[in-house]
Amino acid sequence: MTVVRPSGRAPDQLRPVRIERGFTRHAEGSVLVSFGDTRVLCTASIDNKVPAFLRGKGEGWVTAEYGMLPRSTHTRSDREAARGKQGGRTLEIQRLIGRTLRACIDRGALGERTITLDCDVLQADGGTRTAAITGAYVALVDAVRWLQGRGEIKRDPVFGAVAAVSVGVYRGVPVLDLDYAEDSDCDTDMNVVMNDGGGFIELQGTAEGHAFRRDELDALLALAETGIGQLLELQRQALAG
Amino acid sequence: MTVVRPSGRAPDQLRPVRIERGFTRHAEGSVLVSFGDTRVLCTASIDNKVPAFLRGKGEGWVTAEYGMLPRSTHTRSDREAARGKQGGRTLEIQRLIGRTLRACIDRGALGERTITLDCDVLQADGGTRTAAITGAYVALVDAVRWLQGRGEIKRDPVFGAVAAVSVGVYRGVPVLDLDYAEDSDCDTDMNVVMNDGGGFIELQGTAEGHAFRRDELDALLALAETGIGQLLELQRQALAG
Amino acid sequence: MTVVRPSGRAPDQLRPVRIERGFTRHAEGSVLVSFGDTRVLCTASIDNKVPAFLRGKGEGWVTAEYGMLPRSTHTRSDREAARGKQGGRTLEIQRLIGRTLRACIDRGALGERTITLDCDVLQADGGTRTAAITGAYVALVDAVRWLQGRGEIKRDPVFGAVAAVSVGVYRGVPVLDLDYAEDSDCDTDMNVVMNDGGGFIELQGTAEGHAFRRDELDALLALAETGIGQLLELQRQALAG
Amino acid sequence: MTVVRPSGRAPDQLRPVRIERGFTRHAEGSVLVSFGDTRVLCTASIDNKVPAFLRGKGEGWVTAEYGMLPRSTHTRSDREAARGKQGGRTLEIQRLIGRTLRACIDRGALGERTITLDCDVLQADGGTRTAAITGAYVALVDAVRWLQGRGEIKRDPVFGAVAAVSVGVYRGVPVLDLDYAEDSDCDTDMNVVMNDGGGFIELQGTAEGHAFRRDELDALLALAETGIGQLLELQRQALAG
Amino acid sequence: MTVVRPSGRAPDQLRPVRIERGFTRHAEGSVLVSFGDTRVLCTASIDNKVPAFLRGKGEGWVTAEYGMLPRSTHTRSDREAARGKQGGRTLEIQRLIGRTLRACIDRGALGERTITLDCDVLQADGGTRTAAITGAYVALVDAVRWLQGRGEIKRDPVFGAVAAVSVGVYRGVPVLDLDYAEDSDCDTDMNVVMNDGGGFIELQGTAEGHAFRRDELDALLALAETGIGQLLELQRQALAG
Amino acid sequence: MTVVRPSGRAPDQLRPVRIERGFTRHAEGSVLVSFGDTRVLCTASIDNKVPAFLRGKGEGWVTAEYGMLPRSTHTRSDREAARGKQGGRTLEIQRLIGRTLRACIDRGALGERTITLDCDVLQADGGTRTAAITGAYVALVDAVRWLQGRGEIKRDPVFGAVAAVSVGVYRGVPVLDLDYAEDSDCDTDMNVVMNDGGGFIELQGTAEGHAFRRDELDALLALAETGIGQLLELQRQALAG
Repeated sequence: MTVVRPSGRAPDQLRPVRIERGFTRHAEGSVLVSFGDTRVLCTASIDNKVPAFLRGKGEGWVTAEYGMLPRSTHTRSDREAARGKQGGRTLEIQRLIGRTLRACIDRGALGERTITLDCDVLQADGGTRTAAITGAYVALVDAVRWLQGRGEIKRDPVFGAVAAVSVGVYRGVPVLDLDYAEDSDCDTDMNVVMNDGGGFIELQGTAEGHAFRRDELDALLALAETGIGQLLELQRQALAG
Repeated sequence: MTVVRPSGRAPDQLRPVRIERGFTRHAEGSVLVSFGDTRVLCTASIDNKVPAFLRGKGEGWVTAEYGMLPRSTHTRSDREAARGKQGGRTLEIQRLIGRTLRACIDRGALGERTITLDCDVLQADGGTRTAAITGAYVALVDAVRWLQGRGEIKRDPVFGAVAAVSVGVYRGVPVLDLDYAEDSDCDTDMNVVMNDGGGFIELQGTAEGHAFRRDELDALLALAETGIGQLLELQRQALAG
Repeated sequence: MTVVRPSGRAPDQLRPVRIERGFTRHAEGSVLVSFGDTRVLCTASIDNKVPAFLRGKGEGWVTAEYGMLPRSTHTRSDREAARGKQGGRTLEIQRLIGRTLRACIDRGALGERTITLDCDVLQADGGTRTAAITGAYVALVDAVRWLQGRGEIKRDPVFGAVAAVSVGVYRGVPVLDLDYAEDSDCDTDMNVVMNDGGGFIELQGTAEGHAFRRDELDALLALAETGIGQLLELQRQALAG
Repeated sequence: MTVVRPSGRAPDQLRPVRIERGFTRHAEGSVLVSFGDTRVLCTASIDNKVPAFLRGKGEGWVTAEYGMLPRSTHTRSDREAARGKQGGRTLEIQRLIGRTLRACIDRGALGERTITLDCDVLQADGGTRTAAITGAYVALVDAVRWLQGRGEIKRDPVFGAVAAVSVGVYRGVPVLDLDYAEDSDCDTDMNVVMNDGGGFIELQGTAEGHAFRRDELDALLALAETGIGQLLELQRQALAG
Repeated sequence: MTVVRPSGRAPDQLRPVRIERGFTRHAEGSVLVSFGDTRVLCTASIDNKVPAFLRGKGEGWVTAEYGMLPRSTHTRSDREAARGKQGGRTLEIQRLIGRTLRACIDRGALGERTITLDCDVLQADGGTRTAAITGAYVALVDAVRWLQGRGEIKRDPVFGAVAAVSVGVYRGVPVLDLDYAEDSDCDTDMNVVMNDGGGFIELQGTAEGHAFRRDELDALLALAETGIGQLLELQRQALAG
Repeated sequence: MTVVRPSGRAPDQLRPVRIERGFTRHAEGSVLVSFGDTRVLCTASIDNKVPAFLRGKGEGWVTAEYGMLPRSTHTRSDREAARGKQGGRTLEIQRLIGRTLRACIDRGALGERTITLDCDVLQADGGTRTAAITGAYVALVDAVRWLQGRGEIKRDPVFGAVAAVSVGVYRGVPVLDLDYAEDSDCDTDMNVVMNDGGGFIELQGTAEGHAFRRDELDALLALAETGIGQLLELQRQALAG
């Protein structure tokens, strides 16, 4: 089996991943994450309010918004602000990011405040949602440290870590971390979010060409596990830096 | 391990499922599908046009829209038409339904026409999206038969069948086809769409409480396979009726 | 004068009318009303709030929303939630339904709560607004009984009853309860809402082809009075059931 | 029976009515109509296109839009352009105006062009929709004459004339042409549109306080007929001027 | 240099300007201002609330909204309320009007209330924004006098006066108060707002054809100063009337 | 007069300015421009279509869109895509950017294509619109070179260059290139756009505190001229690089 990936990577090889903290200066957490040519700016903003359904319960909230700059893509897409609404794909992705980050937050320990993760894609080359989750986790930790640095929270509300990667069957071969060239010519595609305890947070698999068999699913999950292990390590290094 | 499900069902037991064809008379396909108290009206409408990106290519399109009547739920929800936009959950579900049904259609054989599946929830008790997919498949087949009956298409564009079910870990036990009482008190929840060849079309798993382990995932997939087998048989019977 | 109505009905004959209470289970009142092939699901939902302009006045409110499922009609209409706004016809009808039901409610006796009538057309064959008013009245009574059953209100806020029917001049002959075939080939068309005291609540007449004379108006009003008498009787039977 | 109307008018007395043609100079027809303190600017604009559903049929179209300046009313209302949508009342009124003016137009004779009547309320004191219809008719005739003056149409597409007035039961007495003080303290209220052949074009009666009896209806219709006779005469004089 | 302006005016000549107070009767200030054929109705409405960012600070607010009637222009423009949003030009103009009028108001002396200036163009012939500012100032003063007449404010919050005019280079010659014919065939165009102390409030110059030189700028500013002097005098006369 | 600017700059000193070409790789032109801590990503995208009003005329179009990332500012602003519309400030700025860049383009030489400049603020510290214009000019030139490199246009459609800077009166002293600390505590503020021939393209001055005198205006224009001279030189160096 000698499929050559367009990028020349081995089937189980991530793209070069970079996590730069402090990319902009106003946000409490600000991370530029790159998975190869995919670059996403993830900022974490703290607001001392919570949504109406949580008011007075002593719990915090973590939520996310996602956007692509109009020319982050090969051909220019309409600006959602100009069209007057966010598309279904955008809403789906930002709901996913918010859900996965809430999975590693103790909302009681956070207290009545909201952390909003804005994930804006500066350049897209496949895998923007998995890069966004991986980077937003680091921005979230930075925002929490900011709160701790000012003595505003006592216990660390972040438990564990989360990272995400895509996997797919490209020309019959299961591969890790699809780039755009692979993604657009791929039969099956799955986004996997895991935590550092080896548990699954989200699993979203779609058969684009034909349905995938159980053995393919197993191979994809194994690849994802490998990749996420490396991403969690990169997050640790970035946060230690 | 003797968890009692609120409904008294066995862990691997579907709710009573009913598929009524011809529920309304204008649509080319019209199915009322019930998964217990969840009732969804699925209509298939044929239009002799295709979206702009397909024009002139000799291919057809299948798409879906989803809605809940305001008082299909325990407490009344706002009417999306009155609020002026469809919410993120709605868009996510209708994108899912469209994608899964396109997975069993030969778009060339369909010819330049669009079939729109409208899935409107009359009463909700958990699992509306899986009921919608299961019922919409039957409405789609009816619409295709309508075209065949008028000689408008030669080859049958439907290959295979698709059905969907939810599975989840309820109080530590993997169970099939969650109803609302289980869904709202459940740690992990997965929607599975499969075809009649045993392949996976979509897999959407979310850890609501804590992350799920690989062995739980395996148990859930096995349950889903069982349930979908029964649903595919019920679809066959309905279509034979 | 031997006009044959497309349905074969006599000029002063209603379509078969059915009023099924308890059609869905979550709403405090839930009625499926059928005027022939026109089927409208009317639910009444109670909310313990009132609009801002009534707050603190000790009075309740009754309001209505109306919608058509996209394929309730001969050809599919756009989903209003997807288009991002309710059309003028929809707003006009829901304002009419709300207004006519408020005409039989003592808002002081209702207390500071809102009852919302959702009228959703499952299948349309002419006369959806008159069917909706006739069915919504029954759902409203059921919701009020639900409040009384729980001891939340003392005096019955419903006084009298209201029902509605359309009348029109079809090929020169005044006829009762137009179906779609008649409605689309009709010179004059009037919706009449009356109460059980014989008073008029609303009168909306439109000359589609040519203006109508005073004697035609008189004939139409007489027909409406007959039809509404029968509808009020059917409401009484349904509520006694 | 000696009810004194707030304005001191007799029950069957119109407010002073003025119809000024050529109020602004760009539009093909431009009329400022006043019913007492109610002042509406009605312009008729010609466009050599028709809506999609009429294209290629050789027929024209007449349509209307309605708006109130934010401070045309006693207290300032929100600007609909700023709120981002037209309210239900606005849509209802503009649909009514368009429908009634189409009732006096031979669309074949108009040819494939659209005449849009914009009715903008500069000052409101009750009866804005009936003033708008009465004034818009004159603007429509002016626009048609403009077309005739340039030889663009051969046959006059306007047949007959239409005018409108409100009637209501004020403190038990049927009165003609309600002003705001009466309108807001009135049990029953009806807008009547008639043509110069004595036929009814539209009839919209609403019981605000209590239902109206048949004899009240007859009295209101008689008043409307009187008032509309006078309005038709004033239109004729204005158009002769 | 003998450029003939389309209107025959001298380069430094304003169009005939008229300021009619009390044009409509509900608003606390209501002014119809005409700069030649440009006619703008400016109303000032008082509301005893302030925007959220000012609440509890003891200061008032002055804001403006701007609109054009659809057929105020040579060819009909879409109604912004029907399109569902205000265009960029509208927002830009209403922000400008609000800003310039706030420049002559002592917000502390006004107290916690908002004055909204609605500037609606009945007929457009160039210079609508400068006419609007000039007229809105008079309406604002009338509204303040209304408050003073009722003893609701003690100190006069209006200091100084503001007026506005456009200037431009038309066929190489600097001219004052451009009308539509000049404006649409003009290289450079500047809107100038000044107060009665000779200070500049706003300066908005745009090179439509080619960039303007410093000497042209100086000539335009001198023209503007002359014109605004005359407009301030006309405001004084109107307010003295 | 020894005012100390918060940044310690001299009154006529620009912030450090950086112009990085090729910041992202999909766009035909992509420039990250920094004026101190203000960082704006400007991309130029080519589309082989023109707006409807230009179709078939053989001319091209240049337009701009502007946005701020939600946390580019000190406190997070709402995402315009989520709010469903672009604010007045955004529309005003993007209209300004488009207008100024069209002032240096020969639209006939560009041919029937549109170049869209997307200016997205990654970090804001005052002067985002002037940085955007200065950077977008470079991106525009790069896009034009891309077209020339592929032989798609013959003549260079760019004539001259444009750059922009803000000036203002800070604590009584005219200063160049305001940063956020100055901008928010400043009496008068002017944005100036000039070309390399020394001509003015746009001038937008606003008196925030009190009106500005003619001599202040002259001082500000002189400062702007100095600053723009330096910016034009930096553009030349960047484009030569």
